[in-house]
Amino acid sequence: MSRAPRFLILAEGSFNPVRSKTANACLRYTPDRVAAVLDSTQRGKTAQQVLGFGGDVPVVGSVDEGLARRPNALLIGIAPQGGQLPPEWRTVVLRVLDDGLDVWSGLHTMLGDDPEFVAHAAATNARIHDLRRPPRDLDVARGRARDVAATVVLTVGTDCNIGKMTAALQLLDGLRAKGHRVAFAGTGQTGILVDGKGISVDAVVADFIAGAAERLVLEAAREADIVLVEGQGSIIHPSYSGVTYGLLHGSLPHAQVMCAQPSRTAIRHNDWVAIPPLPEFIALHERVALRPAPVIAVALNTLDMNDADAAAAVERVGRETGLPTTDPVRFDPAPVVDAIDTFHRARAH
Amino acid sequence: MSRAPRFLILAEGSFNPVRSKTANACLRYTPDRVAAVLDSTQRGKTAQQVLGFGGDVPVVGSVDEGLARRPNALLIGIAPQGGQLPPEWRTVVLRVLDDGLDVWSGLHTMLGDDPEFVAHAAATNARIHDLRRPPRDLDVARGRARDVAATVVLTVGTDCNIGKMTAALQLLDGLRAKGHRVAFAGTGQTGILVDGKGISVDAVVADFIAGAAERLVLEAAREADIVLVEGQGSIIHPSYSGVTYGLLHGSLPHAQVMCAQPSRTAIRHNDWVAIPPLPEFIALHERVALRPAPVIAVALNTLDMNDADAAAAVERVGRETGLPTTDPVRFDPAPVVDAIDTFHRARAH
Repeated sequence: MSRAPRFLILAEGSFNPVRSKTANACLRYTPDRVAAVLDSTQRGKTAQQVLGFGGDVPVVGSVDEGLARRPNALLIGIAPQGGQLPPEWRTVVLRVLDDGLDVWSGLHTMLGDDPEFVAHAAATNARIHDLRRPPRDLDVARGRARDVAATVVLTVGTDCNIGKMTAALQLLDGLRAKGHRVAFAGTGQTGILVDGKGISVDAVVADFIAGAAERLVLEAAREADIVLVEGQGSIIHPSYSGVTYGLLHGSLPHAQVMCAQPSRTAIRHNDWVAIPPLPEFIALHERVALRPAPVIAVALNTLDMNDADAAAAVERVGRETGLPTTDPVRFDPAPVVDAIDTFHRARAH
Repeated sequence: MSRAPRFLILAEGSFNPVRSKTANACLRYTPDRVAAVLDSTQRGKTAQQVLGFGGDVPVVGSVDEGLARRPNALLIGIAPQGGQLPPEWRTVVLRVLDDGLDVWSGLHTMLGDDPEFVAHAAATNARIHDLRRPPRDLDVARGRARDVAATVVLTVGTDCNIGKMTAALQLLDGLRAKGHRVAFAGTGQTGILVDGKGISVDAVVADFIAGAAERLVLEAAREADIVLVEGQGSIIHPSYSGVTYGLLHGSLPHAQVMCAQPSRTAIRHNDWVAIPPLPEFIALHERVALRPAPVIAVALNTLDMNDADAAAAVERVGRETGLPTTDPVRFDPAPVVDAIDTFHRARAH
């Protein structure tokens, strides 16, 4: 992916712990790559003040102010529903391309296919990176993920934007500390941005979702004992369940880690779809897998709770599900790490 | 879709009751549109002799012989796994374009994006119709199919290529005879070919599967009391389940019709996925729907059985499931028609 990026992250009007998912992951896992965040509504703060992490990275109020921080790339830092480029951002993209900055985007709209963007980029030798652009040679799944020697673990969840990518990323260090060779298989624009590779399975031709997942597992398994596959969506999400199921049936995990937010009782933006009690939802997830794939741990997202409530939620969910439970961001990820380690060792015997 | 087509159907080496799905549907529902079928391995027979329907349409052994039957269009009559154009057919496509024939294709490979095909078509004013090309303005689903007044019925199945489209098409006449305004919502290249409109949901960007299904239902429901949605794949298909679930959760049917082939015990090309007993599979299908969507009838595909065995299978499955059951092609579709009629009337009250 050519020169090391130093990002101005575009998150106008949306930079907060919940909405600016791509920006936040970039700040959590690769803060050294971020020059500034653009959101005029939070101008003057630091990322740390807005998110609770991200350190001294400043929030700026205009493109000019951002450019003064000497970024070499613009990152579209939010993923709006539907994945289109908000019209008011078009001028921002053109402006930074004219300044010679690369543009990184995880939108469904491929900026690299836009003739005007392409012309402006060509004029300044800037590059456009569309994180969601699928490989050209995808194929249908053929059940080949069954044959890998590595232990494949898929993070799944009750809803979108609930911590499936973050849970996987938070487990890497702990599993490595136990001596495992671990690979992360990125399946969405943010995971791909953080890890530097992957396939955005929600952007492939529908018939190839499982095929894309299968390819990711086969590639990741070559050099790993444990493959952590980034989950997407939810099996009960009325907009995105197709992606979720294709990923589940193409990656064919040996085990699943369930991600949930205790405060969420219905699918976001879809109040008519209630999230079932977690034990019931876990049983359903195991039922719809195509081979045995037990849910072996729970990763909670307690972002919107205080410490005492978060600890109580972890205790309660652990009791209700009978599974190792933690919030791998707020608390020690060890319970989930240990569950995967134990499962992997049992499988290897 | 411009001039009325008179097809030469390309099905080389594959024209038979099972493999040439697109060709067969065209011959069953619109035989007047077919000039000839090209399959040198069946040369000299009629469609009737090969399929048991299709009348006197001749099977020819070469392109020249086919062109002598005065077609004005070539139809790619099979849908290979993965949806690519077999290389040996490339010369056939170029040849007929040079002769001024239109080309209709349901492959994933968009023939209309191939510069060589486009150039040859332009030279003779021929047109290329890619049946799977998705609309440009698709969006994510928003649960809007919940709001339609029409009764939405989705045909679902245990596997691919088991009769979901055919079941829906076979019910149209019977439901119309009962006075209902009925719409067929085509979701695959063959259904679209037969009906003249629709969206091939397996060819859209993965995030938009449910959105495409939702759009089809909203459009079909405008002028119908009953919408029959063509199902795709199977919820246990390791390659295509994502499409199946997206279609189920986007179309939000009020009721489902289960399609199955009694002789099939595992997913085709995927022997490692056993098809559960039908009552169990039906219960699973009702469980994974996002709102109550009872399976109200069973449509069997008894193509590979003799009459006595087929009748016995219908009787047995009806008993095991407790549902109205028939083979809507071989026998009278009335049991399924009546089940839908009764369900619709009960809903309307």
